[in-house]
Amino acid sequence: MKSANGINLTMLCDFYELTMGNGYFAEDMQDTICYFDVFYRSVPDEGGYAICAGLEQIINYIQNLHFEPEDIEYLRGRKLFSEGFLDYLANFKFTGDIWAIPEGTPIFPMEPAIVVRAPAIQAQLIETYLLLEFNHQSLIATKANRICRAAEGRAVMEFGSRRAQGIDGAVTGARAAYIGGCAGTACTVSDQLYGTPALGTMAHSWVQMFDSEYEAFLSYCKTYPHNATLLVDTYNTLKSGIPNAIRVFNEVLKPLGITKCGIRLDSGDMAYLTKKARKMLDDAGWTECAITVSNSLDERIIVELMRQGARIDSFGVGERLITSKSTPVFGGVYKLAAVERDDGSILPKIKVSENVGKITNPGFKKIYRFFNRENGMAEADYICLADEVVDDSKPLEICDPVARWKKKTMENFHAVELLKPIFVGGELVYEMPDLKEIRTNCGYQVSTLWPEVKRFDNPHNYYVDLSQKLMDLKDKMLLEAGK
Amino acid sequence: MKSANGINLTMLCDFYELTMGNGYFAEDMQDTICYFDVFYRSVPDEGGYAICAGLEQIINYIQNLHFEPEDIEYLRGRKLFSEGFLDYLANFKFTGDIWAIPEGTPIFPMEPAIVVRAPAIQAQLIETYLLLEFNHQSLIATKANRICRAAEGRAVMEFGSRRAQGIDGAVTGARAAYIGGCAGTACTVSDQLYGTPALGTMAHSWVQMFDSEYEAFLSYCKTYPHNATLLVDTYNTLKSGIPNAIRVFNEVLKPLGITKCGIRLDSGDMAYLTKKARKMLDDAGWTECAITVSNSLDERIIVELMRQGARIDSFGVGERLITSKSTPVFGGVYKLAAVERDDGSILPKIKVSENVGKITNPGFKKIYRFFNRENGMAEADYICLADEVVDDSKPLEICDPVARWKKKTMENFHAVELLKPIFVGGELVYEMPDLKEIRTNCGYQVSTLWPEVKRFDNPHNYYVDLSQKLMDLKDKMLLEAGK
Repeated sequence: MKSANGINLTMLCDFYELTMGNGYFAEDMQDTICYFDVFYRSVPDEGGYAICAGLEQIINYIQNLHFEPEDIEYLRGRKLFSEGFLDYLANFKFTGDIWAIPEGTPIFPMEPAIVVRAPAIQAQLIETYLLLEFNHQSLIATKANRICRAAEGRAVMEFGSRRAQGIDGAVTGARAAYIGGCAGTACTVSDQLYGTPALGTMAHSWVQMFDSEYEAFLSYCKTYPHNATLLVDTYNTLKSGIPNAIRVFNEVLKPLGITKCGIRLDSGDMAYLTKKARKMLDDAGWTECAITVSNSLDERIIVELMRQGARIDSFGVGERLITSKSTPVFGGVYKLAAVERDDGSILPKIKVSENVGKITNPGFKKIYRFFNRENGMAEADYICLADEVVDDSKPLEICDPVARWKKKTMENFHAVELLKPIFVGGELVYEMPDLKEIRTNCGYQVSTLWPEVKRFDNPHNYYVDLSQKLMDLKDKMLLEAGK
Repeated sequence: MKSANGINLTMLCDFYELTMGNGYFAEDMQDTICYFDVFYRSVPDEGGYAICAGLEQIINYIQNLHFEPEDIEYLRGRKLFSEGFLDYLANFKFTGDIWAIPEGTPIFPMEPAIVVRAPAIQAQLIETYLLLEFNHQSLIATKANRICRAAEGRAVMEFGSRRAQGIDGAVTGARAAYIGGCAGTACTVSDQLYGTPALGTMAHSWVQMFDSEYEAFLSYCKTYPHNATLLVDTYNTLKSGIPNAIRVFNEVLKPLGITKCGIRLDSGDMAYLTKKARKMLDDAGWTECAITVSNSLDERIIVELMRQGARIDSFGVGERLITSKSTPVFGGVYKLAAVERDDGSILPKIKVSENVGKITNPGFKKIYRFFNRENGMAEADYICLADEVVDDSKPLEICDPVARWKKKTMENFHAVELLKPIFVGGELVYEMPDLKEIRTNCGYQVSTLWPEVKRFDNPHNYYVDLSQKLMDLKDKMLLEAGK
């Protein structure tokens, strides 16, 4: 798998993964089986949940892990690595197991969204790319989901390629935005590649290229009578843009019997202008003319505009979506959770920190999501050790891992495992869903969250509890570490 | 030039560039020569200047502009484009001219950093990618330059790949950070590709993989006696990490006569811990042991740490650099400045806005930077029409384009043109400097800015003035637009 400049993505690793790899090789530890968890600690924008994404690109990466002869040459030139290790890399192949939560699923802090079980060098090498892809796409899917919720069913188009942080910022960013709920994108290649519908009509430069706004609109409508969305704010929206649009709609579309058309506003006060525009269009008989707006929007501004009665049919959202401007980092981490002994038994590992929130959950784990059998709503997530099995035919007492006095008895619930096997022994065992399916499933999964969890400000903390066995293990290891 | 998933970057365009292209083709306007300016309006982090970057990738992109048969097929499938236009795209080649300010140069708001002169469809098509690359790399170079200034000569390493917004967020992000002043990166492939030195030693997982911290350090020092930077905060920095590091330095390095080594701290209070660490290391005779810190750093925290007397030799900076977290968007725009009439004369274009700051500068322009001949300092930039020539042997009165009463007479100055020819008639005429040269030149150019312009808070507004001729043209066009 090559990247923007024809590079081998296997080399997109932090250098310490190679120095450690060479060290494991020197210690003959390359076959030691390790377990690493990918999880995040806090929701962007202080929201109630995140949407996970990026798995498809991670699968492609894992399937193509390899070092080219020129990569080995570059590494040899660094004069840090043994020839034995370089030989090992020349024959490198991923042979481990990976579990992951499917893309588009709401995820909560501290839950392992990806679990890697692999020989030490392999498990360490893939750290950077796994995090990069998971962090980037989950960030954008989460932001898109917020913005789409604010739009309350109106279409949100992703328009931000030009302000994205690099090529993939735009391309896989548009993919993630689509998963999160966007109707489409301005990014042509994302449509070609992933099927995220690409749309677009005209820029201000189109209007400026003609001798008059009227001529620019006339030309456009003649070429695209079925896709006539006119940008009306190049000169003066109310005095010139909308009157010229109506004139051209009357001259070109009306004789063709076309009633669907559109205008777009890219500047000015969107509440005031869209109300005026709606009235002008309706008075002229263009009641099916859709109004799109697109100027520095995000979920906060959209909520405010709707609250003020703005007459908007769809939103074009740029830089504040494609960079998740208000929180541009998704803080996913990759932490060692266990090591296998020679006899195959699992030795849990824990990272202790003075900050309680930074202490990791030890061991090889899995996650259940508990849905209420009566109304289908998600009630809690439950992290337990991989060998535990939840019997959802019986009541189960769960307990907050930090505030231990907070207990809750689950009854009449349906337990669903979130982590799915993706790779087993290096072989792909997961069938990637179609991107439309992922988006649909995201919408469905989000609908199972209570509105309290979806509030933009100060949302309810969804329950993510630990099994008694996992909590006991963690307590025991913390006690030992404190000695 | 293929991207991450083997895509053709020519297709990384906003869809409206294609609908407009098809429209220009229908109107037989495809040969109309247009001038577009790339410029930005405000400095990230409310700083005094930005560092421009991304030109090398833009050159590669322009040289490889073309549509593959499958791209034409995809476009045909959209049922919007004429066969004539699709034929035009099948034979597409960039034939225009491009001027740009070299990478690593400080740039100021409203200055055209890139000027494109090309037939309408070509000029419109390249909008998205030019902006994307210019915006992304200039954003990161600018942020890196701030962080490096805060570090006052201490090395700053870019450590953020895992939190970057996509593959290029990491890879060209590391390149831009290096231009801005970083000493290197953790990103291996950026070193391989661009020569941004990649460094790295160990993660917490290395320490956890061994039965004890001492054994982990011992193993590492034995493998890398000349690169022994030990991560000392896995368990307890002062009680365990540093004592174990000193023990291993004594056991492994001392017998080899090695005095250079290092420790890294990734958590805890960096002012307190580094002062304690320095004393412990010095007392043990390891005065040449460097101290690196790397936890949620940016220019603000680095300034505070230094002010408190923290004993730090180098910084590892992650997410706050690679996403420019405090201002994650560089708002470069692409605006029509002129159109050529059939007789070759230039018809200037202006974009009027109710917001004075959003009014564009019309016409085909160039920029001079005026350096004081006595001390070499940059005194002002001067935007004029392309046919104007500044004679720096005579005094020149310049005037603020908004606050017209602010006048200044330049004397004893040296005028340097900033925009260099990059493409002429579609042919590359520019020799890309080596990346190290770009970085060195960036450091030199920044040294010509007065400290007042470089202040983090409330910096002095560097003078960017318009020539009288350009100001007169703009005034005349604004008057006409207001009629």
